Amino acid sequence: MACCDCKVDLIPRTASAVTNLAHLNECCKRSEDVDTSGIQHPHGPFMERAIYLSRVAGLEKRTGGCFGAVVVKNGKIVGEGYNNVISHNDPTWHGEVGAIRDASQRLGTPHLKGCVLYTSSEPCPMCMGACYWARIDKIYYATTAKDVKEHGRFEDEDFYEEFAKPPADRNIPALEFMREEAVKVWEEFGQLPDRCHY
Amino acid sequence: MACCDCKVDLIPRTASAVTNLAHLNECCKRSEDVDTSGIQHPHGPFMERAIYLSRVAGLEKRTGGCFGAVVVKNGKIVGEGYNNVISHNDPTWHGEVGAIRDASQRLGTPHLKGCVLYTSSEPCPMCMGACYWARIDKIYYATTAKDVKEHGRFEDEDFYEEFAKPPADRNIPALEFMREEAVKVWEEFGQLPDRCHY
Repeated sequence: MACCDCKVDLIPRTASAVTNLAHLNECCKRSEDVDTSGIQHPHGPFMERAIYLSRVAGLEKRTGGCFGAVVVKNGKIVGEGYNNVISHNDPTWHGEVGAIRDASQRLGTPHLKGCVLYTSSEPCPMCMGACYWARIDKIYYATTAKDVKEHGRFEDEDFYEEFAKPPADRNIPALEFMREEAVKVWEEFGQLPDRCHY
Repeated sequence: MACCDCKVDLIPRTASAVTNLAHLNECCKRSEDVDTSGIQHPHGPFMERAIYLSRVAGLEKRTGGCFGAVVVKNGKIVGEGYNNVISHNDPTWHGEVGAIRDASQRLGTPHLKGCVLYTSSEPCPMCMGACYWARIDKIYYATTAKDVKEHGRFEDEDFYEEFAKPPADRNIPALEFMREEAVKVWEEFGQLPDRCHY
């Protein structure tokens, strides 16, 4: 990766990119970009990094589609990920899920408040859900769901349409079964004085 | 866990439950249940197993909320998971994501066609998205999104409402940035004769 103007080479490693970050974090502080809506982005290199990771996944290592993402906190990358669906036989290993898991491990918390996600593509519902559970502050994405359908036949857009239907009417029908038994567990949970919440 | 009538004890282990399955799979073939809509379920013990795993997560091991799930193929459990968000500082480790990842590893494919997911609660958007990417055939859930909001203050239902809004108007705003740069990667991807797809 050429890190903005300085062209320093950065080696991406999904779960252990710490060695690259000292340089990248310093370098990013010098950069400013303005997006199409006129918003000031002092962190253009973060999106460059996400797009670079999308290249690694789809073109270089061929681990999955062209999807990459980074999680940024206080101007520093704290997590990185790229699509590993094919390489790891894991349908959940999207770029954003990888970056969120990486950041959570590094920061030692499942909550990423104060963090911004930069992702090479508009998050699919799974990854958007991950952002909500992780309490991410804000998301910047590059390609749209329409773009990845056009160029890669990925169905992110279709899935969003599916989710607007009642569960039983979707292409994957979801049906209620044995509700009472499961509610009993929650009733016990509700009585725990020190029950977990997140 | 008491496996339906026979009461054989089964020890749940999220990523390595193989040793339990020989018994459970044989036993399940003998069981029949009918759900509230009158649908025949020859696999009631699969949902019992998912509910048992929800108990492990929320009440016994306290690894997270009361959420458990199993993936079933041809009448056999091929993946199990329960909520590990708190224990592993991983906001993506829901019961369903865990079960899908487990099944994918065991079957050696990111595609779970022919599989049914039994989950103790209606999947959140993240887990529903995981089901779509994994190409799950059908989902049975026990508690509803309303139930887990009432009993555990989990916001699955709110997240579904959020997803119906335009990306920039959500509680986590998602904004487009540097689209052209990312599209270039997809254009290169489109020219690969052996590009991956899933």
